[in-house]
Amino acid sequence: MIKTDILIIGAGPTGLFTVFEAGLLKLRCHLIDALPQQGGQCSEIYPKKPIYDIPAYPEILAGDLTDKLMEQIKQFEPGFTLGERADTIDKQEDGTFIVTTNKGTKHHAPVVAIAGGLGSFEPRKPPIPNIADFEDKGVEYIIRDPELYRDKKVVISGGGDSALDWSIFLTDVASSVTLIHRRNEFRGALDSVDKVQELKDEGKLTLITPAEVKGIVGGDKVTGVEVHKKDEEPFIIETDHFIPLFGLSPKLGPIADWGLEIEKNAIKVNNALDYQTNIPGIYAIGDVNTYPGKLKLILCGFHEATLMCQSAFQRIFPDKKYVMKYTTVGGVDGFDGTRKEAPKAVIKSIN
Amino acid sequence: MIKTDILIIGAGPTGLFTVFEAGLLKLRCHLIDALPQQGGQCSEIYPKKPIYDIPAYPEILAGDLTDKLMEQIKQFEPGFTLGERADTIDKQEDGTFIVTTNKGTKHHAPVVAIAGGLGSFEPRKPPIPNIADFEDKGVEYIIRDPELYRDKKVVISGGGDSALDWSIFLTDVASSVTLIHRRNEFRGALDSVDKVQELKDEGKLTLITPAEVKGIVGGDKVTGVEVHKKDEEPFIIETDHFIPLFGLSPKLGPIADWGLEIEKNAIKVNNALDYQTNIPGIYAIGDVNTYPGKLKLILCGFHEATLMCQSAFQRIFPDKKYVMKYTTVGGVDGFDGTRKEAPKAVIKSIN
Repeated sequence: MIKTDILIIGAGPTGLFTVFEAGLLKLRCHLIDALPQQGGQCSEIYPKKPIYDIPAYPEILAGDLTDKLMEQIKQFEPGFTLGERADTIDKQEDGTFIVTTNKGTKHHAPVVAIAGGLGSFEPRKPPIPNIADFEDKGVEYIIRDPELYRDKKVVISGGGDSALDWSIFLTDVASSVTLIHRRNEFRGALDSVDKVQELKDEGKLTLITPAEVKGIVGGDKVTGVEVHKKDEEPFIIETDHFIPLFGLSPKLGPIADWGLEIEKNAIKVNNALDYQTNIPGIYAIGDVNTYPGKLKLILCGFHEATLMCQSAFQRIFPDKKYVMKYTTVGGVDGFDGTRKEAPKAVIKSIN
Repeated sequence: MIKTDILIIGAGPTGLFTVFEAGLLKLRCHLIDALPQQGGQCSEIYPKKPIYDIPAYPEILAGDLTDKLMEQIKQFEPGFTLGERADTIDKQEDGTFIVTTNKGTKHHAPVVAIAGGLGSFEPRKPPIPNIADFEDKGVEYIIRDPELYRDKKVVISGGGDSALDWSIFLTDVASSVTLIHRRNEFRGALDSVDKVQELKDEGKLTLITPAEVKGIVGGDKVTGVEVHKKDEEPFIIETDHFIPLFGLSPKLGPIADWGLEIEKNAIKVNNALDYQTNIPGIYAIGDVNTYPGKLKLILCGFHEATLMCQSAFQRIFPDKKYVMKYTTVGGVDGFDGTRKEAPKAVIKSIN
């Protein structure tokens, strides 16, 4: 059982910044995310895209935003359960919560903050009849650890950035990479399309277009895929892994069954007071919540996280009074023993 | 008469970021600030101090925060009335407002956003009987333009960062700099104290301590100050300028008389819906406002500014429906003709 002060569902920008504001109040955080890494959409969907409306950043790449937030919260030693989806919540008699993931990992905390963005990102699966039989047996919809493919034969399917970028990356890792797409045209960053062309010309990558994978072959594990190419007889390619990368689509998912008031796929919170839901002790912050005037912007999530932490502090320590100190004045004391502070003024005579 | 869409009182971080969010809605902004430059406290009081709680900045100097915000809003061409204090507001029959400064500059806008922080910073004045007679005649409490002192004789009084830093700076500009402080000890950054010691040792700066200026000599203009040094007879030093730098203290000032609901020196706003005050069309954002759960943090001001702009848009264009576009998707079109946008995906075949 993982124990923490604030259990955060979702490790996107809002969830990550919550760790910082909680840390200033000496509260510890643990984050659960269905994706294999921190950053939410920013890391998984558009890491190389610029964002222009983060205050004081005229431009920042979404991936860099994640890195900066990770650096900012490092000193508060957040815990992470990644690649697992928060599935059930059980309120205990003492008012605390136990949250269990789809893999059975249990987390216990007095406060739960749902910072789930648009929901957990679920992969779009291709309509291959027997594909479910091979999940985790050679079929992966998300690449969690590229080392899994070291010296293996890999077939990737898809025509977007994800298929292009992972094909490029895995040519250096896998023993062979085959990229299959139902069109000749790919849609992605020009650099990536050109790089795949180059790898193909150099014989480092096999390209099969226009074609589709319509069947999977194997027993305990994938041994091959059945490829249908236009104007050709279907044929089998031997492979250890089949990775269909057809995009992710966000789903509120099991959270929708937690007894929270839901409105238009978002969780209703009391208007901007502390972003608490209809269940005391469960908060919703960032894109996942809704209230009159709500804007789904990262900068709003930062503010909501900050106010939420004050309320969480009062819930956890009903008898303590928290006096806010500015970081510029009071500094920042990390749980890892580090201290950041402004250079102190000296009092010194001049003679 | 200066005309704009949103007239912002206060050019601190919240006021500056308002320009960006307004610009995304194609609204123009003009800012009034009593200080001679943008950035509010961040520039005037602690430009070299680090802030640790700006989201995605593990550390940023307050002065750099101002610079980044100025860069971010540049494309939206904000106007500025600096070094003037917003004094009176007159609601017109059509519901718009005219705001007049202490120097008589008039501004006309349908929406006024008060982003006044802790108030306008008023200098603490030394108790010298005839000092008011010489204001703007050689006595300055804030240095607005260092060039005013080019090749002039200058006496600075004070013992903190401001007195130290300006003494250092002006040794390269003025024909002579005299620093007077009532103690031998100065309080400031170690670097600055050491630098003043060095300039004194090199004879580039005259130091008189412990001493106080107790009178000013002159007719139309300052010609000298009367210095009282411990255990000595009072004496006169010839000077063109006397600059007492005893700190600034924030005062809500004339805004307190605008008919707004005030609570504990802050302006009450409707709870977090759009930060509108009791007077429709006048908003209060950032440290100057109060509502249940209010935290006086820069990151909260950014959020408040953003929601406020949506409401201002509806007030200015009651019949238009604004559909929010993410900057990552829609890009940013500046009023100066510039456009920022994410690199477009290409659709390209690989053969």
